Amino acid sequence: MSEKSLGELQCWETVARRKLVDASPWLNLWVDEVRLPDGRIVRDFYTVEQPDHVVIFALDDADRVVGLWHYKHGPACVNLGFPAGYLMPGEDALTAARRELFEETGYVADDWQHLGSYTVDGNRGNGRGHYFLARGARQTAQAEPDDLEEIRIELIKVADLNPLLKGSVATLDAAAVIGLALNALGLKG
Amino acid sequence: MSEKSLGELQCWETVARRKLVDASPWLNLWVDEVRLPDGRIVRDFYTVEQPDHVVIFALDDADRVVGLWHYKHGPACVNLGFPAGYLMPGEDALTAARRELFEETGYVADDWQHLGSYTVDGNRGNGRGHYFLARGARQTAQAEPDDLEEIRIELIKVADLNPLLKGSVATLDAAAVIGLALNALGLKG
Repeated sequence: MSEKSLGELQCWETVARRKLVDASPWLNLWVDEVRLPDGRIVRDFYTVEQPDHVVIFALDDADRVVGLWHYKHGPACVNLGFPAGYLMPGEDALTAARRELFEETGYVADDWQHLGSYTVDGNRGNGRGHYFLARGARQTAQAEPDDLEEIRIELIKVADLNPLLKGSVATLDAAAVIGLALNALGLKG
Repeated sequence: MSEKSLGELQCWETVARRKLVDASPWLNLWVDEVRLPDGRIVRDFYTVEQPDHVVIFALDDADRVVGLWHYKHGPACVNLGFPAGYLMPGEDALTAARRELFEETGYVADDWQHLGSYTVDGNRGNGRGHYFLARGARQTAQAEPDDLEEIRIELIKVADLNPLLKGSVATLDAAAVIGLALNALGLKG
């Protein structure tokens, strides 16, 4: 395809769609039939519907972020992530972020900044992640993660994060929240 | 679950797995039966197998990044992204990054830095993204993207990126490569 002017870029039209697998509430697999702007039809464009989730970069007053070591089945290894979780039905993203931070780590924070909301896979969808920076984080209860994971909380100095991006961080949500948060803070990790 | 020491964190064991949908080469949907470290069995943990992909933050000598405006069917809107694409079978990530940058934009670059490789979805998998910073980028040919997309190339000053993170950037790979690249450059966007 040749290059277009910005005003010429058009959306695809979804002509029909069919659900191949219903694995609610975790995911639904769809196959879309789409019409491209030039009129071509693509009969099998796959999309994956998943619940939205939140990811939280929670800084305490000593410039330490609340990190979580956990096994994740996507990368299939123990790795460094951050408080995160799926939105509950009808829940807004900030409420979910406060809830997940508290449930997973026992931390609360008063100063919340929305870093952005992004579709996980540009082609397939896979839900959206809502990214937050929380400042003034402090622990007021024990961690009580209510899911399948065993976790280890580690407070990590922001200045020590960069070497962890290769080797310890294994998931895109964790890498993205480090990059977005350090950028928002005007810090080099 | 209660908190563990880092040394106590164990991997899950995949006891059995079954392919629910084979939509090669785009994706395969699997359902895994896994055994947790505490012995519990989860019979329906869904994973999505997708090809790995590359994402490239290509800077020219005037500190402008090669941005791409395009429609993406995941967020279902025209949005700002960056050169990116799937690895071909047997291709290594850096080779794919050089190829995708050239095919999509006509740009080449000599100075390549690997920013990290990350599993797209911590739970489901969805392949891995390999992130690159390319410096000294220059256009040596016309853009010839060989896929479904119509694109508009825009050179964007790095200092102008931050306002675009909300509203113009819609996909996690684009947000992540901005955060990771600015962090690697020691710049605030």
